Amino acid sequence: MNKPVILASKSPRRKELLEKCISGFTCIPADIDETINEDNDLSLEIKRLSRRKAEHVLASHPNAIVIGSDTIVVVDGKILGKPHDDNEAFAMVKLLQGRTHQVITGLCVISSERTYEDASVSEVTFAPMSDEEIAAYVATGECADKAGAYGIQGYGGKYITHISGDFYAIMGLPLNLVYEELKRIL
Amino acid sequence: MNKPVILASKSPRRKELLEKCISGFTCIPADIDETINEDNDLSLEIKRLSRRKAEHVLASHPNAIVIGSDTIVVVDGKILGKPHDDNEAFAMVKLLQGRTHQVITGLCVISSERTYEDASVSEVTFAPMSDEEIAAYVATGECADKAGAYGIQGYGGKYITHISGDFYAIMGLPLNLVYEELKRIL
Repeated sequence: MNKPVILASKSPRRKELLEKCISGFTCIPADIDETINEDNDLSLEIKRLSRRKAEHVLASHPNAIVIGSDTIVVVDGKILGKPHDDNEAFAMVKLLQGRTHQVITGLCVISSERTYEDASVSEVTFAPMSDEEIAAYVATGECADKAGAYGIQGYGGKYITHISGDFYAIMGLPLNLVYEELKRIL
Repeated sequence: MNKPVILASKSPRRKELLEKCISGFTCIPADIDETINEDNDLSLEIKRLSRRKAEHVLASHPNAIVIGSDTIVVVDGKILGKPHDDNEAFAMVKLLQGRTHQVITGLCVISSERTYEDASVSEVTFAPMSDEEIAAYVATGECADKAGAYGIQGYGGKYITHISGDFYAIMGLPLNLVYEELKRIL
């Protein structure tokens, strides 16, 4: 197949990750409702959301291969979204410190002929953090635009003692799954 | 304590990682014999090597806090060092593909008063790779200066399906362990 590849995202982090796999793709954000029903199975929900993103872009680019992805941070079965302000960021990091939580990343690679969907669940363990440490971390500004108010690839990394799963999925794109699917179809 | 911090390394990757923890340190490579005795316990050996690096720099900077670290890739109890050429890089990646191996990272944080040593063992799983894929990966040039002939943070990332352990230790510096020790002493 010689189709153009589109990443249905405006995230610079996802773009940077996909560049490890392929070159020459374009990024088109999918302007969709990202609401998730927390009462349903969250892996299923995140797969569906990734698919809605990819389908939305495919609708206007029917000749392309479109990649959609979304990541959520889950603790005690509840989703932590992006914090609205520093107080909320502080509360989220305080909830995550000293324990293990889940990161669920959905993926959909879709073209007019073929659909591939997957969800990757990883576990991330934070070291115990004092309120002073949490405040110092929030003050770096890194929490603002991140689900769960932390970035594993940034200053947040020094508070993380263990991960089990796909590091790149935690960052926002399950790189090996994308690569394997593109290998199958390109 | 108000001592200067020195990273006993010439690795730009380790420097970049330590910058997530602290600012204002200097890097001084330790010019020592890095031979490891494969017949001994490898965690112990890598801790000793990290300590030798740190002690070497401390000897000429007795007022500093010195950080030494080293990382080895281990498969079937044998250490994979840095490949000498593309053929050796190919052979190493071929050995690693389709299975799980260990990455052991040693750490020593030393000052005239205090020594802290640790070793972190992580597991990394590669997807199966064809000879064509291995050759394409070697051709990126990424394998040349890396133990085990791969970089988890570079193009190598797309072949990795799972990790269990400390991602930053796999990259070359156990960030949380360094941070916790510096917090204790600074």
